[in-house]
Amino acid sequence: MLKIGIVGFGYWGTNLVRNFAVQQDAVLYGIAEQRAERHAIIKKNYEKVKIFTSDDDLINDPNIDAVVIATPVFTHFGLAKKALMAGKHVMVEKPMTSSVAESLELIELAAKKNLILMVDHTFLYTGAVQKMKELIDSSTIGSPHYFDSIRVNLGLFQPDVNVLWDLAPHDISILTYLINYKPHSINATGISHTNNNIENIAYMTVNYQNDFIAHFNCSWSSPVKVRHTLIGGDKKMILYNDLEPSEKIRVYDTGYDHKTEEDRNRIIVDYRTGDVFIPKLSGTEALFSVAKDFINSIKNNTQPRANAQLGLEVVRILEASQESIKQKGKEVLIK
Amino acid sequence: MLKIGIVGFGYWGTNLVRNFAVQQDAVLYGIAEQRAERHAIIKKNYEKVKIFTSDDDLINDPNIDAVVIATPVFTHFGLAKKALMAGKHVMVEKPMTSSVAESLELIELAAKKNLILMVDHTFLYTGAVQKMKELIDSSTIGSPHYFDSIRVNLGLFQPDVNVLWDLAPHDISILTYLINYKPHSINATGISHTNNNIENIAYMTVNYQNDFIAHFNCSWSSPVKVRHTLIGGDKKMILYNDLEPSEKIRVYDTGYDHKTEEDRNRIIVDYRTGDVFIPKLSGTEALFSVAKDFINSIKNNTQPRANAQLGLEVVRILEASQESIKQKGKEVLIK
Amino acid sequence: MLKIGIVGFGYWGTNLVRNFAVQQDAVLYGIAEQRAERHAIIKKNYEKVKIFTSDDDLINDPNIDAVVIATPVFTHFGLAKKALMAGKHVMVEKPMTSSVAESLELIELAAKKNLILMVDHTFLYTGAVQKMKELIDSSTIGSPHYFDSIRVNLGLFQPDVNVLWDLAPHDISILTYLINYKPHSINATGISHTNNNIENIAYMTVNYQNDFIAHFNCSWSSPVKVRHTLIGGDKKMILYNDLEPSEKIRVYDTGYDHKTEEDRNRIIVDYRTGDVFIPKLSGTEALFSVAKDFINSIKNNTQPRANAQLGLEVVRILEASQESIKQKGKEVLIK
Amino acid sequence: MLKIGIVGFGYWGTNLVRNFAVQQDAVLYGIAEQRAERHAIIKKNYEKVKIFTSDDDLINDPNIDAVVIATPVFTHFGLAKKALMAGKHVMVEKPMTSSVAESLELIELAAKKNLILMVDHTFLYTGAVQKMKELIDSSTIGSPHYFDSIRVNLGLFQPDVNVLWDLAPHDISILTYLINYKPHSINATGISHTNNNIENIAYMTVNYQNDFIAHFNCSWSSPVKVRHTLIGGDKKMILYNDLEPSEKIRVYDTGYDHKTEEDRNRIIVDYRTGDVFIPKLSGTEALFSVAKDFINSIKNNTQPRANAQLGLEVVRILEASQESIKQKGKEVLIK
Repeated sequence: MLKIGIVGFGYWGTNLVRNFAVQQDAVLYGIAEQRAERHAIIKKNYEKVKIFTSDDDLINDPNIDAVVIATPVFTHFGLAKKALMAGKHVMVEKPMTSSVAESLELIELAAKKNLILMVDHTFLYTGAVQKMKELIDSSTIGSPHYFDSIRVNLGLFQPDVNVLWDLAPHDISILTYLINYKPHSINATGISHTNNNIENIAYMTVNYQNDFIAHFNCSWSSPVKVRHTLIGGDKKMILYNDLEPSEKIRVYDTGYDHKTEEDRNRIIVDYRTGDVFIPKLSGTEALFSVAKDFINSIKNNTQPRANAQLGLEVVRILEASQESIKQKGKEVLIK
Repeated sequence: MLKIGIVGFGYWGTNLVRNFAVQQDAVLYGIAEQRAERHAIIKKNYEKVKIFTSDDDLINDPNIDAVVIATPVFTHFGLAKKALMAGKHVMVEKPMTSSVAESLELIELAAKKNLILMVDHTFLYTGAVQKMKELIDSSTIGSPHYFDSIRVNLGLFQPDVNVLWDLAPHDISILTYLINYKPHSINATGISHTNNNIENIAYMTVNYQNDFIAHFNCSWSSPVKVRHTLIGGDKKMILYNDLEPSEKIRVYDTGYDHKTEEDRNRIIVDYRTGDVFIPKLSGTEALFSVAKDFINSIKNNTQPRANAQLGLEVVRILEASQESIKQKGKEVLIK
Repeated sequence: MLKIGIVGFGYWGTNLVRNFAVQQDAVLYGIAEQRAERHAIIKKNYEKVKIFTSDDDLINDPNIDAVVIATPVFTHFGLAKKALMAGKHVMVEKPMTSSVAESLELIELAAKKNLILMVDHTFLYTGAVQKMKELIDSSTIGSPHYFDSIRVNLGLFQPDVNVLWDLAPHDISILTYLINYKPHSINATGISHTNNNIENIAYMTVNYQNDFIAHFNCSWSSPVKVRHTLIGGDKKMILYNDLEPSEKIRVYDTGYDHKTEEDRNRIIVDYRTGDVFIPKLSGTEALFSVAKDFINSIKNNTQPRANAQLGLEVVRILEASQESIKQKGKEVLIK
Repeated sequence: MLKIGIVGFGYWGTNLVRNFAVQQDAVLYGIAEQRAERHAIIKKNYEKVKIFTSDDDLINDPNIDAVVIATPVFTHFGLAKKALMAGKHVMVEKPMTSSVAESLELIELAAKKNLILMVDHTFLYTGAVQKMKELIDSSTIGSPHYFDSIRVNLGLFQPDVNVLWDLAPHDISILTYLINYKPHSINATGISHTNNNIENIAYMTVNYQNDFIAHFNCSWSSPVKVRHTLIGGDKKMILYNDLEPSEKIRVYDTGYDHKTEEDRNRIIVDYRTGDVFIPKLSGTEALFSVAKDFINSIKNNTQPRANAQLGLEVVRILEASQESIKQKGKEVLIK
C-alpha cells in the first residue's frame, strides 16, 4: 500500500492530514512538523502516524512513497526538489513555486524520474467548478467572452507575498482549468498600505489574442467578504458565488448578438434574457478528492486534474503580474 | 423670473423637463426637439412650453436665460459653446465634453462672460452620496485608503463612446466629489466584443501620489446588474449598494492598523470589526435638486455642487483612460 | 364601442383610469369623483373624459355600458347593485363586498340581468401567478400540500376593515385561483394595537377536508416588508417572493415521500433536493390585462378570470375569519 | 471537583460531551450509551471517561454529582426523576418533559432535595438572544407589542412528537426569556402529511391579557430554511435572522404612534422610520456557556438562566398547543 508523508502540520496541513488519513488506497505514514506543541495533537488523533521533527528525515525515509508539502510558498521549490530527487511523488500546496523557472525545473525533474508532480489547487475538485467545466465543455454557454473575479475580505497581511499571490491562485487555477485559450499578457496594478511594499489590494487583467478577457480584483482590506465570479458566453452566462451555501452556481439564459449597421457604424445588440437555473452540486469534500486523485495518479501513472502543467500556468500569470505592477501597470507578456 | 430652455427631449431630457417644470424660481420656457413624434407628448403635458425644431433657435431666443443640453456627448461642446456665446447660462449632460481641451475652452468662456456652467452629475445630489460626503468630511471613516466601484449590467452598446465614457462618469464624479486627493495617473484595459473597437467591458485604476487607489469595473455584458462601491478608511469602511431600495449605505465599524516587526519584516495587522450602521437617507429626487442648484447658482452667482471644474476632472480621467487603453494598459499621467 | 365609467379617482382609481384609457376595444367615457381638487388632474390628462360629481349620475348615464367601482369596501355593494339595476356591467375593487350575503345578491342580480360582474383581483393577471397556475395545472409540482403566505409591512391602519380584509384578499384570491380544493373552515387570531378593536396583526389558517392547509400572516406593523408565499407539492415546491424584481418565482426540485414502518410506528421520510429553477416571467402590466379581460368578457359574454364566483369565495373566507377572531380563534365553517 | 455524567451520546449528546469535557470547574466522569458502535468514538476522543451501558448505573454511580440527560423527550421525566432521587443535580435536554404535570413534579422534587434542575435551552446563551435581552430590558425598543417567529426547513419527521414540540421550544424559550408578560392562552392549528397524525406543519398563537401577541410558524416541509423572528416595540423593532452569519440582529429605528379622531373613528398612525443598526455580537459558543452556567449554578447554589421554571413555561405552552390542535384551534387556557 502507498505510504504518504506530509510536511507541515499548520492550518492547511491539518486538513490534508485529515483527508489523507481516510483514503482507502494509501496509508498516512508520517508527518514532519517542527513545533513541539503540534505533536500532541497528532499523537492524540493519529496515534499510528510517525512524527518527524526534520523535513529531510521524512523526505528521505525509505518507507515513504509520496510527499505532500504544506509549507510557506518560498520553501516549496527546495522541498519538492529534494523529494523528487529522493524518488518520491510530490504534491505541493498552491502556488506551486515562487517563479516560473523553479516550476519548470521541478516539472523537468519529475518527468525525468517518471514521478507524479501535482499542485493542490483544491477548487478544481469542488462541485461548483466541476459543474462550470461541464457547462463550458458541453458548449452550453457558447463561446466564452470573459471571466471576471472578485475575491476580497479582511485578510491576514502576508509578510512575503502580495495579495495576488495569496488570493488569486484560486481563481487563476479555475480560469486555467475552465478556459482553453492561451493567455497572452498581463496588466496589474495595486497598492500597499504598509511600508514593506507588499500590495494588499491589487487588480489584474489577463489579455488573450482573441476577444476573451479575464480580470481579478483581490483585497485583504474589504469590510465584506466577496467571492464572486462572472463567466460570460455568447449563449449563456454563469454567476459563481462561492459564499452561497447551496446555490453557488447560477446559469443565466442570457446572451447577446451584435451586428453593425454599416452606414451609421451603429452597433445593434440584441439582448436575450430568460430563465435562471441553479443546479444542485455534488457535495463531496473537495480536499478528499484531491487526495484521492493524487493517489490514483500514482497508482495508474496518469496525470492528475491539478497537474504540474496547470500549476505552472498559474505561476506564469502571477510572475507576470508582479512584473507589471513593478512597471506601473504596463502590459507584460506571459513567458 | 428665470427662463429655461432645454435642448433634447429624449430619455433623460424627459426627466429634466419634468423636474424643471416644477421649480419655483424658474419657468420652463422652451424645448428644442427635432423628432416630430416627440412634440405631441410635450404639447399634451406641457401645453405652455414653446417647441423649437432647431437647437439654434432655442439657444438664440432672447427670452431664454439658461440652456440645458441633453444631447449625445459629441454635440455637448458645440451646443454649449453657442449657448455661452449667446450669453446663456448652461447645464450640460455628463460627461461634459469629449475632451479635456473642449472642457477647458468652455470653462474659460463661461468665466469670461460671467456665466454659470454646470454638468448634470446627478448622483452628487442623491441622499446616498450626501451621506458619504458627510461621513468622509467629518473624518468618521478616518483617512480614505481606497475606492472600488463595480457598475455592470446588460447595457445598450453605445455606437460612439465606450463603456467607461458611458458608465464610469457616475462613479468618477462621486470619487471626485468625495475624495480631495488629486489623481495622478490612469491604467485602463478593456475589450470590444464588436468589430468597431469600442470596449463593452473595461477596467480602470486611478493612481494617486499617496497611498490611495481607485478602481472601476464597467460592463455592458453582465447578466446581473451590480452597483457596488467600497470606500475604505482606516477607521471605518463604507459599502454603497445603489440597488438596495432603502439600505444603500452601510457603514462598517471596521478598520486596521499595521506595524512592521523589524526583525522578521512581518506585518502585523490588527483588524477590528464591530457594528454595522445603516443610516436613513434623504428621499428627495436627485434631479429636482440638480435643477434647483442650477437655478440658485444663476440667481446668486455662486458655483453649483456639480460645477464645471468637477466636470472637467471627470473628463481628464476619461481621456487618460482612453489613452491608456490605446497603449495597452500603460500608465498615463492625467493632464 | 363599449363605453366605460369609473367611480372613484383615488390612488387605485388613478391606475384603473390609466389602464382603461389605453384599451383598444373600449372608450373611457366618464369618471365620478366628488373631490374638486382631483378634477384638475383628470382634465389635464384625460381632456375628453366627462367628469361627474355624483356617482349616481355616472351610473345612470345612458351612454355608459360598464361601470368600474374603486371606492371604499363598505360602498361596493350599494354602488354595484345600482349599476347592475341600471343594466351596466360591473367591475368592483377587491374585496367584492363586506359580506357573503351581499356578494350572493350581486351575483344573482348579474345573472338575472345577464351582465358581467367582475372583481379586480389584479394579482391573478401577473406573470408570477400565471406561471404558478401553469406549474400546478400541469402537475409539475405534484399534489399540492400547503400554501403559506406572509404579507407584512408598515401599513396604513385602515379605519373600517382589519388587516386581513385589507391585505389578505391578494393572497386568498391567489390561493382560490391556484388550488382547486374547496376550503372547509377557518381559524383566525389577531390583535389590535389601537382602541377601535380593528386588528393590525392577524393570522389565519384555512382548513380543508383533505390533507391540504393554508396559512396567512398579515401585519401593518412590521419594520420590514415581506411578500413571501410557499406552495408545497409532493414533487416540487414553489417560493413566490413578490419583492424580487426579476426572480419572483423559484421552483425547487424538492419533494418528500413518507412511509410508516409498522412495527415501530416510525415515519421514514425520504427527502429529495435538487436543482432550483427561476423561470422568466411575462412582464405585461397586470392591471392592463384586468381591464382587457373585463372588456373582452363583456364583448364575448364569457366569464373573466377574476369572476364574481372567485370574488365570493374570497369574501366567504374573510367573513369566516372575522367570525373566528370574534370567537377567539375557534374553528368557523365556511358558509 | 464536580463530576458530570452524561446520558446519551447521540447527535446532541456529542456536542454536550465536547463542551463539558473542556470546563475548568468540573470533570466529565462518565457517559451512558447503549449502542456499542458509539463506544469506540468515546474511547478514542475521551479516553479517561468511563463508559456505562446502563443509564441507571451512571445515575446511581456515587462518584457522579450531576447528570446531563440527552435522550428522547418521552424519557426525560423518568431519567431526571431517578437522578434527582439519587441526589444528583440535573440538566435535561429541551423540552423539559412531555407534560406540565411531569415538569411540576421534577421541580418540586429538586426543590425538596435542594438540587439544581436546569433545561438545555441553548439559544438563551447565544450572543443574539443576549443582545435582544439587553435591547428589551433597557427599554430601547419601548413596550413590546408582538413576537413573530418562523422556523421552517426540510426536517426529519419525528416519530413521537409533532413539529411544534420539535422546533418551537427554541423560540418559545426565547419568548419566555425576553418578554415578561404572562401568556394567557393558546390557539394552534396544523396538518399531518403522514398517517400517524403527527403534525409536520403547525401554527400557534400565544395570547396575552394585554395587547401583546406571539405567533409561531413551524414546518418540516419547507424547501427553504427560514429562521426569522420579528419583535415589535413601540419605539423600535428587531429582526432576528439566525441564518445570517454575522448580522443576526437588526434594530430598526421604526415605531408607530396612533390616535383616534373621535368624530370619524379614524385611526391616524404616524409611522417613523429611521436608521438600521446591526450590532456586533459575542461569538462564544452557546453550549459552552450552558455547561458553564450549570456548573456555576451547582457551585454557587443559584438558579441558572435556563432554569426549570422557564423550562416549565415552555412545556405549558406546548401542552396547551397540543390541546388546541385537538380541539381544532379553539382557545385553550394555559394552566
